[in-house]
Amino acid sequence: MARLDALARHSDEPVQLTRLYLSAAHKAAAEELAGWMREAGLTVSIDALGTVVGRYESAMPGTPALLLGSHIDTVRDAGRYDGTLGVIAGLVAVEELSKRGETLPFAIEVVAFGDEEGVRFPTTLTASRALAGNFDPMVLEACDADGVSLRNALIAFGCEPTAIARVAKSREAVLAYVEVHIEQGPVLESEGLPVGVVTAINGVRRLAVVVTGEAGHAGTVPMRLRRDALTATAEMALAVERVANSLPDVVATVGRMEVFPCAVNVIPGSVQFTIDVRSPEDSQRDAATEEISRAIRKIAANRRVEVSISTTHEAPATACSTVMINALSRAINHLGFTTRTLPSGAGHDAMAIATLCPIGMLFVRCAGGISHNPRESISLQDADICVRILLDFLRNFKPI
Amino acid sequence: MARLDALARHSDEPVQLTRLYLSAAHKAAAEELAGWMREAGLTVSIDALGTVVGRYESAMPGTPALLLGSHIDTVRDAGRYDGTLGVIAGLVAVEELSKRGETLPFAIEVVAFGDEEGVRFPTTLTASRALAGNFDPMVLEACDADGVSLRNALIAFGCEPTAIARVAKSREAVLAYVEVHIEQGPVLESEGLPVGVVTAINGVRRLAVVVTGEAGHAGTVPMRLRRDALTATAEMALAVERVANSLPDVVATVGRMEVFPCAVNVIPGSVQFTIDVRSPEDSQRDAATEEISRAIRKIAANRRVEVSISTTHEAPATACSTVMINALSRAINHLGFTTRTLPSGAGHDAMAIATLCPIGMLFVRCAGGISHNPRESISLQDADICVRILLDFLRNFKPI
Repeated sequence: MARLDALARHSDEPVQLTRLYLSAAHKAAAEELAGWMREAGLTVSIDALGTVVGRYESAMPGTPALLLGSHIDTVRDAGRYDGTLGVIAGLVAVEELSKRGETLPFAIEVVAFGDEEGVRFPTTLTASRALAGNFDPMVLEACDADGVSLRNALIAFGCEPTAIARVAKSREAVLAYVEVHIEQGPVLESEGLPVGVVTAINGVRRLAVVVTGEAGHAGTVPMRLRRDALTATAEMALAVERVANSLPDVVATVGRMEVFPCAVNVIPGSVQFTIDVRSPEDSQRDAATEEISRAIRKIAANRRVEVSISTTHEAPATACSTVMINALSRAINHLGFTTRTLPSGAGHDAMAIATLCPIGMLFVRCAGGISHNPRESISLQDADICVRILLDFLRNFKPI
Repeated sequence: MARLDALARHSDEPVQLTRLYLSAAHKAAAEELAGWMREAGLTVSIDALGTVVGRYESAMPGTPALLLGSHIDTVRDAGRYDGTLGVIAGLVAVEELSKRGETLPFAIEVVAFGDEEGVRFPTTLTASRALAGNFDPMVLEACDADGVSLRNALIAFGCEPTAIARVAKSREAVLAYVEVHIEQGPVLESEGLPVGVVTAINGVRRLAVVVTGEAGHAGTVPMRLRRDALTATAEMALAVERVANSLPDVVATVGRMEVFPCAVNVIPGSVQFTIDVRSPEDSQRDAATEEISRAIRKIAANRRVEVSISTTHEAPATACSTVMINALSRAINHLGFTTRTLPSGAGHDAMAIATLCPIGMLFVRCAGGISHNPRESISLQDADICVRILLDFLRNFKPI
C-alpha cells in the first residue's frame, strides 16, 4: 500500500493524479518502479514502448516466463489502484519468493505497461499489443492534443522506436499472463468477497441513435397531435434496460442523451443518444443489440417519429483461459475463500495479451465499485489477500 | 397580406425578422401602421408605452370603445403573423366600415402593443398591463442586454414615462377586447377549419426536477446493482405524458433534459429536467401537477434514486368571456363555418386586458402549427375569412 501511495505522487498535475503515457510523471513512476524491482532482485529493462519489465529467473535460466502485470498510466483525476495494483501485487509476490530464495520451474516477468487508458493519444493498449506482436506502426504518427506524435514522445521518454519490433515476445518465451486488477464494479463488495476470477472481458457494441419527431409549442399542441422525440426516447431507454435485464451477464447503458432544442416550453423535436451493450459472449451481445434495435424501431413506428441507429464501436469479448481460471480459483480456495467468477465489464491489457498466450485475471474488491476517481479505494487486508493468492497460484502453477 | 409583408420589412436584423420592443424597427413599424390608420380615417396616438392606438368614433362621439388588437413586437427570427395579424385584421375591418361610412353604436380602438414577446427586457405585457391599469413602475428600471433601462428606451422611442399613469383605461371607457391571433398550434389545420374561438388562455405551472442516482462504469455495474438516473427519468417522462393524456385539454411537456456526466460508457448519475403543465382550468392543472409529482416520487422510490421537484413558474388560466365566445361563434356561423372552441396554450395580451374588461379571442389556422419561426404561414383565404368574421361580429355586437 505504501508503494501504491508512492506511485500516486508521480502526477502530471499538481493537485490530482493524472499520469499520461510517456509523460514526465510516467517516466518518474517507471524509474521508481524499476528501482524497487532491482532491490527485489529482478533484472530490469524498459522496452521500446516504455514498458517496465522485471525478470525473476527460474532455477534454470532461459525458461519461458509467466507474465504478471498491468499498467501504470492513469486517467485524468484518477484513483491510485486501477492498473498499479496489478503491477505492485506482482512485484510484491515475486519479492516474497526472492526474499526466501525460492525459485520456480519457470521465470516470472513483472510488466508495467504505459498505455492502457488511451487518454493522451488516440490509441490504447499500444504497449501490451506490441508485447503480443501486434504493434501497428501507423500509431507512431498519432498525436496528442499538443501535436506531439507518439514517435517523438517515445524518443523524449528515452525509447528507441526502431527497436519496437524486438518488443514482441515469441509464443515459446511465455507461459501465460496474469493480471490482478481492482474490480471497478460493485459485485464483490455486494457479496462480501475480497476477490473474484474473471471469466471473460466483455465485448462491447456502441450504437448512436437519432430520434426525429416534431418540435412544437408546449402550450399549443394537444397531446394527441404531438410527435415528441423525448417521450419516444424515454420509451426506448426503458426498452434498452428491459432487454439487458432479461439476459444474464448482459449490461446495456444509455449514457449520453442530448435533447433539441432543449427549452422548457418547446416539445423536443429531436434527441440523440448512445447505447453501450456489453456481454462476455459476443453472440449474446449481438442478440441483445438486435432485440434493442427491433424494440426501438417499433416504438418509433408507433409514435410516428423517425429513427436512425448506427454502430459506432465494436470489440469482441476476450475469454480468459479455463486453465488459468481454474488455477486462480484453486488458490482462492486454498486461502479459504469462496470462488466467485464474473465477467469484466471494462477493458484491460489482458485483452491485448490474449492473442499471445493464455490469460487469467484476478479481481480485487474496491469500495463502492468506484473507479476512475480519486475516491477509488481498496483495503489493506484485501491487498494482502490478493498477494497471498498470487503467491499460492505461482507456487502451484504447472506450465500449460 | 401586403401590409403584413410590409411590416415584416421593419427588422432590427438584416436577414431575419426581429423586432424588439422600443427598437428602431418597432418605431418604424409603429409609424407605418399609424399612417395606415390615419388613411383609414382613424384618430391616432402613440401612448406613453409605445402602443399605437387608432380610434374610430361611433355615431355619438365619446361612447365607450371596443378594443381590437394584438402586438407588433416579435421574437428573434420570427414569423410575420404572430401578433401583427390581430392588429392588421382589426385595422382592415375598421377600414371597411370607414370606407362605407358605416358607424356603430360604439367606438372602436385598434391597438398595437409593443411588449408581448418579452425578448428585449426581462418583462412582458408591459404595454397591455398599463392599458388595463396594472403598470408596475419598477419595470422602468429593467435593463436590456446592453444595460439600457426600459425608462431610457421609452424616452429614446419618443415616449414620456411620466405620462404612463394616463395610459390606463377606465372600465367605463371600454366595452371589451377582441384579439385575433394565429393559433400557433395544429388543431384547426388538423380539423380543416379556418378559425376557432378561444375558451381560455391556459394557466401554466413549470416544475424543475433533479434526479440523483449513482454514476458508474457502463461495463462493470450489473443491471440489478444500478441506480441509473436516466432510466428513472425515462419512466418519469412517460408518466408526465400518461397523466396529460388522461385529462382533456391538459398538456404536459418535458422540454429540457440534461444528463450528467453524459458519457457513452458511464451510467448517468444525475438528470435535470423540466415539466411544463398547462390547462384552461387551474384546478385541473393543479390536479395534473399533483398526480405527476406523486408518480415521479413513486418511480424514484422504486428505483432507489433521490428526486427533488420544485415549482419554477406559475400563472393562472384566464377565461374568455362567455358573451364574447358566443358573439364570435355566431359570427363564424353566419359565414357558414363550424364553430370550434379551443383553449390557447400560449399567452397573449388578452391575459393582461382581462382584468379590465371582457375578452374574446379568434384563432386563425396556421400552416403546420408552426410559429416563432420564419416558416410561420397563413393563407390569403383564411386572412379574408377572419376579417369577414370580425366585421360580422362588429356589426352585431351589443355592448355588454
